[in-house]
Amino acid sequence: MTTTTTTNPEADAIFIAENEFLKELVQQIRSQDHYGVFRNWEDRLVLANFIVSKKKKREIAVTGEVDPATQLRILSFYRAIAARIEKSTGKLCQVVLDLSHEGFGWSLIWSGRLMVTCRTLRDAHRFGFESYEKLAADGEKLVNTGIELIEKFPEVANI
Amino acid sequence: MTTTTTTNPEADAIFIAENEFLKELVQQIRSQDHYGVFRNWEDRLVLANFIVSKKKKREIAVTGEVDPATQLRILSFYRAIAARIEKSTGKLCQVVLDLSHEGFGWSLIWSGRLMVTCRTLRDAHRFGFESYEKLAADGEKLVNTGIELIEKFPEVANI
Repeated sequence: MTTTTTTNPEADAIFIAENEFLKELVQQIRSQDHYGVFRNWEDRLVLANFIVSKKKKREIAVTGEVDPATQLRILSFYRAIAARIEKSTGKLCQVVLDLSHEGFGWSLIWSGRLMVTCRTLRDAHRFGFESYEKLAADGEKLVNTGIELIEKFPEVANI
Repeated sequence: MTTTTTTNPEADAIFIAENEFLKELVQQIRSQDHYGVFRNWEDRLVLANFIVSKKKKREIAVTGEVDPATQLRILSFYRAIAARIEKSTGKLCQVVLDLSHEGFGWSLIWSGRLMVTCRTLRDAHRFGFESYEKLAADGEKLVNTGIELIEKFPEVANI
C-alpha cells in the first residue's frame, strides 16, 4: 500500500536482522500471513508498510474507518511489544486495540492487573514511522517501560 | 427489546431508588439518551432491558455481530462501575469494551496503570441479569474489588 522511502536496502536488512524488536515484529506479521503471501519476502519488505514518510502521511485521509490492514499493522506492533515483554519477564501479557470510527482510541497491554502500555491513538489511519530505526526505537522504548513497570510492581503483575 | 420478568414493580422501584449502583446506572443510560426517549420513563423501565431471564437468554442467538443496543448496555454497566469507583476514590477511571464479532472480548476499567476491572466476556449477545438484585450485586462486587485494589496499590493508580 505504502512504498518504503529507504535509500539503502542492504543497511536496512542488516539493521533489521540485528534488532530484537524488529525481528519479533516480523514474526508477528508472518504468523498472521495465513496465505503465505510473505513466505518468500525478505524481512525488510515484510516491514515496509510500517515506514510512512511525513509527506505520505499528509496524503492519507483521516476520515472514515481505519483501513483493516492498518489496524492489523498497529495490532502487530503492540503484539510485538507484548511478546518482547513476555520473553523478558516471563509474565503473560494481553493486548487490546480499541479504535473508534474516526481513528481515535487506545492501545493497551497489561499483565495481571498492571497496565504496562497505555497509549492513546489518534489519526490511526496514518500509523507509521519515518524509518526502521525510529520504528525500532519506539517499540523498544515501550518494551523497556513495560519491563521496568513489571520489575517495580511485581505483586500487581502477579494478581 | 426484552421484557422485564418482574412480578412486583413497586418493590423493584423502591429497590432501585435505594441502590447507589443502580441509580448510577440509570444516570449513565439517561446521559446517552440524546433524543429524550426515556425522559418520562421511570428508572425501573430504563433498566428493564438489563433483566433477561434464563429462558429468554436461551432464545437469543449468539451468532453474528452483537446488537449495538446490547453493546451500549454492556458499556453503560461498566461505565457505571467506573463512575462509582471514581466517586469513592477520587481516581479517574477509563473504560474500554473490546468485543469480537462473535461476542467474545474484554471489559476493562483502569486508573493510572492499575487495572481495576478486567473481565473476559463471552456470549455478549445474551448480556443480562436474572433480577435487579443480581444486577446490583454484580455491579457492586466489581466496584468494591476496584476500590480495594486502588487502596492496596495507590502508587500504581497514581502513575
